[in-house]
Amino acid sequence: MIRLNAADAGFATAFTALVEDRRESSADVARDVAAIIADVRTRGADAVRDLTLRLDRHDLDTTGWRIDASVCADAYAALEPELRAALDLAAGRIRAYHERQKPADTDYIDPVGVRLGARWRPVDAAGLYVPGGRAAYPSSLLMNAIPAKVAGVGRLAMVTPTPDGQINPLVLAAAHLAGVDEIWRIGGAQGVAALAYGAGDIAPVDVITGPGNAWVAEAKRQLYGVVGIDMVAGPSEIVVVADALNDPEWTAADLLSQAEHDVTTQSILFTDDSAYADAVADAVDRQLNTLATGAVARQAWEANGAIIVVATLADAMPLVDRLAPEHLQLAVDEPQTLFDRVRHAGSVFLGRHTPEAIGDYVAGPNHVLPTGRRARFASGLSVLDFMKRTSFLGLDETALAELGPATVKMAEAEGLPAHARSVALRLRMNR
Amino acid sequence: MIRLNAADAGFATAFTALVEDRRESSADVARDVAAIIADVRTRGADAVRDLTLRLDRHDLDTTGWRIDASVCADAYAALEPELRAALDLAAGRIRAYHERQKPADTDYIDPVGVRLGARWRPVDAAGLYVPGGRAAYPSSLLMNAIPAKVAGVGRLAMVTPTPDGQINPLVLAAAHLAGVDEIWRIGGAQGVAALAYGAGDIAPVDVITGPGNAWVAEAKRQLYGVVGIDMVAGPSEIVVVADALNDPEWTAADLLSQAEHDVTTQSILFTDDSAYADAVADAVDRQLNTLATGAVARQAWEANGAIIVVATLADAMPLVDRLAPEHLQLAVDEPQTLFDRVRHAGSVFLGRHTPEAIGDYVAGPNHVLPTGRRARFASGLSVLDFMKRTSFLGLDETALAELGPATVKMAEAEGLPAHARSVALRLRMNR
Repeated sequence: MIRLNAADAGFATAFTALVEDRRESSADVARDVAAIIADVRTRGADAVRDLTLRLDRHDLDTTGWRIDASVCADAYAALEPELRAALDLAAGRIRAYHERQKPADTDYIDPVGVRLGARWRPVDAAGLYVPGGRAAYPSSLLMNAIPAKVAGVGRLAMVTPTPDGQINPLVLAAAHLAGVDEIWRIGGAQGVAALAYGAGDIAPVDVITGPGNAWVAEAKRQLYGVVGIDMVAGPSEIVVVADALNDPEWTAADLLSQAEHDVTTQSILFTDDSAYADAVADAVDRQLNTLATGAVARQAWEANGAIIVVATLADAMPLVDRLAPEHLQLAVDEPQTLFDRVRHAGSVFLGRHTPEAIGDYVAGPNHVLPTGRRARFASGLSVLDFMKRTSFLGLDETALAELGPATVKMAEAEGLPAHARSVALRLRMNR
Repeated sequence: MIRLNAADAGFATAFTALVEDRRESSADVARDVAAIIADVRTRGADAVRDLTLRLDRHDLDTTGWRIDASVCADAYAALEPELRAALDLAAGRIRAYHERQKPADTDYIDPVGVRLGARWRPVDAAGLYVPGGRAAYPSSLLMNAIPAKVAGVGRLAMVTPTPDGQINPLVLAAAHLAGVDEIWRIGGAQGVAALAYGAGDIAPVDVITGPGNAWVAEAKRQLYGVVGIDMVAGPSEIVVVADALNDPEWTAADLLSQAEHDVTTQSILFTDDSAYADAVADAVDRQLNTLATGAVARQAWEANGAIIVVATLADAMPLVDRLAPEHLQLAVDEPQTLFDRVRHAGSVFLGRHTPEAIGDYVAGPNHVLPTGRRARFASGLSVLDFMKRTSFLGLDETALAELGPATVKMAEAEGLPAHARSVALRLRMNR
């Protein structure tokens, strides 16, 4: 953890170093992933079976390629009632929030008489990657699957590794709740490639989303363009802007809720009170001692954490914009004034009673958000990621007479005579 | 050119081959591009200067790095009046169409008392690649620059190669008209890398769009995630669905207007009348002989063209969806019936008097469209490509009491105790 004060000499340099520290994985997996993708593209199901046997140590022809819908329904029914109610609440609220993202079509006649517009349609099929093991979060499944279903995607195919045959029942329950249509027991780059190109009984999809390890992320990156993908995801981060009226224990827990995800995550506090900064630092140290995820969280906090004291919280906002954080908590009584100044953030949590964790689970907005400063140009996952827009136009003879001559002029200036001719013929222009 | 009839044995196989022929460049430029990007990232302006000297044969320190705004204003003023009027018309109509794409923010209180919403903001800076030489189209500049300006992007920086120092005045005039803020005389992968990472006086941008050769396309692909990019672009295509009431010369010109772009482009006609198919084929052959771009168009038509006879035009629509064409012309009297069946197309041109060329220049919708079957999941360039969405939520104590317990439950089930604690502390839950 580093402590910075905006008033200190050297602050600008130290802060720039913090901004430019991207914490991205440097693992060079590109070549391995390219080989796996080529193998799956060429050999299809045979490649997937061989790779799963080698990497996940089970034979798909023995354990079965698919997990049946009834297994998911059973897992959902077997959930502890309180947890099932929590998942139901989350799914309902996520659905309600994303329903409002559905884009409106346009269709109008302009003053010249040209019909113009745009029509949104869902993709035919979406693929969802769900990690195995520790990072298999039912909440992530809901956050990826529900927007696809709200978009109207007809077929939602999920791949997930089942190392040594093991299956996570929480994930299956969430798949049932979200309405996933197919589940294939395949992970890694081979799972992504099978979704993109198809393999055996797995038909290809149009869009692939969902978190994964470095191999999965690289496979999605390499297949971008063959299919649509959600943004390249990097390590997670949170920025908390807090005045001294917050309970330091609350703020410490907020910072640690990010740090416990992974050793590469980053938690940053901006405050205008140096004594409060000390109190939060102490609370973090205390809480780390009693946290089951303390080992990971401590490593993340020590390597990437930061506490930055500024003269006023308003001063923090241009610095926050440079970080363009995935998550931004504005823990003050009147957050709107600060929020109005924010240009770049994935998601903003307003006020003292809005810990980021609420957004991870039940609030409704998506928790798949741009990381590593990508909020400068990228948005959280949404219904739009599972839809595409077709523009259209229609002219009658009168409208073509209005727009045709300018088209002919520009086409000729660009050296494209067939473009000019296709208009000129219709206008009986002498060309 | 191939002729197919949907009634023939073997049609399904032949059509599938047509669908799967992606015509993508197989040039393996990835390694060269990676080296150029690394060089620009490390050495900045020195790398850009060296690469430009080697590849474009001029010394930026002598010819100047930037093209001054006054040079663009002069180029615009010097345009032939009729051409200037055509560009003005195009710019105005493109602006008007894209104004309607600006997304609405949301901000509401749900029944539980949670404030929820999403806020759209433009990116700070966009970079625009403009090719040199033959493919330097002022229309493309308008189609890329105007949506960025409509989005509200404050800084629009353009790079364009000026081989041997040569500049295309039409492009400069369009840059003036579109309000481009900076023009740098740099092309290729080094131009894209300079925009992404910055170099010398060039500040980094957040999004890069614009067409280019295989090096430019690969540079954008490799930098996806460092910046936002428009979709990976491949060879262009048009599908024309036409009945026998069309003038075969018009349809032939429509097919050739795609073919003249490049030898990799594809033009496909679907018709329900075999004699009409013959007439169009003959007209294409005749027009090729008098077309200044005939050499390119002939090669494209012979290698990739297709005429497909179907029993009814309605039968063509599922086949069109499999092709998911960039451009689709529905050249019939009542195009709406066919249009209602279209799921996948970049842009649709309705009726006999709407040649695709109208959309390339002055109609208003964007001509940067998904190619190579990517209309299955991708959309044309729009204002949204230059904006990003920040979601937000705000809870008070009462709302947190409603949603908190479910959050604690899910966080504990996922093994994330700091998430649970950040909520439990605020609710004074015993955790």
